[in-house]
Amino acid sequence: MSKRALDVTRSQNFPDWYQAIVRDGDMAETSPVRGCMVIKPWGWGVWERIQAELDQRIKDTGHDNCYFPLFIPMSFIAKEAEHVEGFAKEMAVVTHHRLKNVGGKLELDPTARLEEPLIVRPTSETIIGDAFQRWVKSYRDLPLLINQWANVVRWEMRTRLFLRTAEFLWQEGHTAHADRDDAMAETMRMLEVYREFAETVLAMPVIAGEKPANERFPGADNTFSIEAMMQDGKALQAGTSHYLGTHFAKAQNIQFASAQGTQEYCHTTSWGVSTRLIGGVIMTHGDDDGLRLPPRIAPRQVVIVPMLRDKPEDAALVDYCKGLEGELKAKGLRVLVDLKPVKSAEKRWNWVRRGAPVIVEIGGRDASGNAVTFMRRDKLRDGDKIVSHNMPREQFVSGIVALLDGIQASLFTEAKARLDGNIISKFTTFEEMADYFGAAQGDDEGGAFKGWCKVAWAKPEGAELEKVADRLKALKLTIRNAPLDAGKPDGQCLFTGAPAKEYVLVARAY
Amino acid sequence: MSKRALDVTRSQNFPDWYQAIVRDGDMAETSPVRGCMVIKPWGWGVWERIQAELDQRIKDTGHDNCYFPLFIPMSFIAKEAEHVEGFAKEMAVVTHHRLKNVGGKLELDPTARLEEPLIVRPTSETIIGDAFQRWVKSYRDLPLLINQWANVVRWEMRTRLFLRTAEFLWQEGHTAHADRDDAMAETMRMLEVYREFAETVLAMPVIAGEKPANERFPGADNTFSIEAMMQDGKALQAGTSHYLGTHFAKAQNIQFASAQGTQEYCHTTSWGVSTRLIGGVIMTHGDDDGLRLPPRIAPRQVVIVPMLRDKPEDAALVDYCKGLEGELKAKGLRVLVDLKPVKSAEKRWNWVRRGAPVIVEIGGRDASGNAVTFMRRDKLRDGDKIVSHNMPREQFVSGIVALLDGIQASLFTEAKARLDGNIISKFTTFEEMADYFGAAQGDDEGGAFKGWCKVAWAKPEGAELEKVADRLKALKLTIRNAPLDAGKPDGQCLFTGAPAKEYVLVARAY
Repeated sequence: MSKRALDVTRSQNFPDWYQAIVRDGDMAETSPVRGCMVIKPWGWGVWERIQAELDQRIKDTGHDNCYFPLFIPMSFIAKEAEHVEGFAKEMAVVTHHRLKNVGGKLELDPTARLEEPLIVRPTSETIIGDAFQRWVKSYRDLPLLINQWANVVRWEMRTRLFLRTAEFLWQEGHTAHADRDDAMAETMRMLEVYREFAETVLAMPVIAGEKPANERFPGADNTFSIEAMMQDGKALQAGTSHYLGTHFAKAQNIQFASAQGTQEYCHTTSWGVSTRLIGGVIMTHGDDDGLRLPPRIAPRQVVIVPMLRDKPEDAALVDYCKGLEGELKAKGLRVLVDLKPVKSAEKRWNWVRRGAPVIVEIGGRDASGNAVTFMRRDKLRDGDKIVSHNMPREQFVSGIVALLDGIQASLFTEAKARLDGNIISKFTTFEEMADYFGAAQGDDEGGAFKGWCKVAWAKPEGAELEKVADRLKALKLTIRNAPLDAGKPDGQCLFTGAPAKEYVLVARAY
Repeated sequence: MSKRALDVTRSQNFPDWYQAIVRDGDMAETSPVRGCMVIKPWGWGVWERIQAELDQRIKDTGHDNCYFPLFIPMSFIAKEAEHVEGFAKEMAVVTHHRLKNVGGKLELDPTARLEEPLIVRPTSETIIGDAFQRWVKSYRDLPLLINQWANVVRWEMRTRLFLRTAEFLWQEGHTAHADRDDAMAETMRMLEVYREFAETVLAMPVIAGEKPANERFPGADNTFSIEAMMQDGKALQAGTSHYLGTHFAKAQNIQFASAQGTQEYCHTTSWGVSTRLIGGVIMTHGDDDGLRLPPRIAPRQVVIVPMLRDKPEDAALVDYCKGLEGELKAKGLRVLVDLKPVKSAEKRWNWVRRGAPVIVEIGGRDASGNAVTFMRRDKLRDGDKIVSHNMPREQFVSGIVALLDGIQASLFTEAKARLDGNIISKFTTFEEMADYFGAAQGDDEGGAFKGWCKVAWAKPEGAELEKVADRLKALKLTIRNAPLDAGKPDGQCLFTGAPAKEYVLVARAY
């Protein structure tokens, strides 16, 4: 068996492989705080790139960034709970504001109990809605388009780094509009921003569509998502955009004077993506040697490793590498010369595991011959053999931008082929579909690759929908979304036999 | 009396004036959560600029950004409390992870009480130290240079927007080194980064120096600060850099194998600046018409107001403004054409209060004559009269970068003259100094401008230092720092009469 840079392959054990990349790719680690992660420099660098790219898109579509309090009074949550069915209650609650020293031991100070408990924000609809209620007076104040980058906390019982953690980082957009049309246009605009961002920047193809009623955000009239296919076939919900109707506006009294002088409730939206995207990038692009990062989000797009040998010639080698670094930086690229005091081979494998798109190795012959030896991380091997390229320095420098663009494109193409090739449309009965997916497996068991099934359904509601959801749940399946561009089916609902109304995607999911 | 854009002047009531700028300059507002603020788009834009500029400097000095958990186990805090005298106990404590619905009312779920309470981070030495203890094995891992941008919470009883809030945003640098020299060099390097950043980017002159022992960060061997003079004469501590010796390393077992094979404790540092800087910018540069923002941190450096009149000619006016905007953006500037549906005069005053550096007003005559009419916010008035400039468009565009540089420089020069002109060195007895400051006033009373006193002291320690601090406290005074560049005094200590060892600055402070 050939040696790979990780000690477990995708086919051996997908969940272990994921953890190995997170660990050996220096992305994140667990912390002593239950469910909270430490995001390490390389992982954080990816998040910084995601933030920069997405923030620009959020601003370009007219939104202003703000910052709202970390804490939400319990009464706000209570008011929301009255209005919102399916309201989640797992959240971190602050009850005291002081510790005291009792005989050398720290304890809660009972005299410092808060009159009203504070909730660490699980999402900010209520606290931002409270501001909207003050800020919106007239139709002239609309639309109100706000976004914030923040940490949020949801008390998850089972956590997995990036994919599901108690604390995570995200952006949450919150907007208020004069009418349904304007709010729905916003909801769809941001869904499209997410789709374009995921595909262009993360090189992660997605299906944009509407969630079924049972998967809506509590309080939303419509929830839309982008769904990505991981290399184990599971779906990852990578972003959501909600049209909230007037539910939150009514709960929080967000009203405006219309041009006609009447008082009206606003229509609101919210939309968000989180550090979960990083998990999606890992499971979309990683291979058995580690992560492969799309150049647009790689903290370093080119890493240069001088093959130092603890000899006097080393100085000239470092100079050569620094010169090359300067030329690449002048093209606006993110470049690093790795001068850490560890062996060159170890450096190579570190950068392979971290997924730097282009790894340059400069030895004495390169320096004296004014040449560059490099590996493309996206096409690291031919069979088991590592593929190394050598070319004149000038040629490498003049072609580097095109090379990085090519890597970005090839990662997308590879993932797109996987997605397109694994959406199965042939099933017309529940039994056929159930057969395909086979027995349900535990979350950590991996199991054979299973794609998604595109099936026609009658869009049942209420108890009928619950029954469908229960049948799927028994197989660990969910309806991911109804793709926007799937067209209208002719046949019958796979679940009920009634005339079908739309196509939906059924899959196992994270 | 002349009309000013704020309804209160600095001389009438400085604290009220500050609040008026924060409110009318659209910077921030109080929230329904005690002590927590909502940072509004314009205020947030300033923070984004501060982050971008400072983050670049932090990276350029070799630091990597990471992200650590919001929560800290109480046992970590307890361990620190054992090692650290003067440890503060006012912090938000999470004790439960679920709410439950009891007869339609939300309550704490008593079955969801955490075994160990979690503290919302007031600062991250302990949780980051825990990671350092895992990450540092050998001298080859040092120095370890980490920074994070995060929200932190300290339960303050009296809050003031930006200056002192329960939740605030900051960056906190944390580093580990092999020896004292390397750690002290880091401490001083980051102090200098803060000084240069404050003066160059915020146009806020500061004095860099060492805090007296009684003002040190709990657990630090040495604490250094930059101190800025506000327009009421009070000092604002704008940034701190701490050499922590081996205290935290010992409490958390951060050890490394030296090149000689011995196990040694690391020497650590930490350093931070916060959203408090925005309060400093307001009180350094604001005038009676509102905020004046240095161009380098202004979210929009040039705001263009078309003098619309609801007539057909408006379209051409808007086109002209958009054309001008394009030319300015092509120079890399942050520009806005204000098309909000409000009166032009109202827009003008909004931007005056917000402190946009250059406010352009385009009327029909400007557009037809290919000219630009504008105001410099730093020199808005001549006496009471608003000063408006008019010049050919081409001349305005070709000169705009120099104009903005000039505004940045003039704001700094003005503040620097105030600082330099109000450090009083003539006092040699405590009584003379006490006379100068006069009776202490409440925090919200304002009072006459009082500068800082530079006095010689013997650097007393222990009980003697406490006595000095108490005498000063009775006058609401503190020692701010011992300026690095103040030289060595000849005379006697103003407090004790002993031979003086260094100069210190005494002032009222925020």
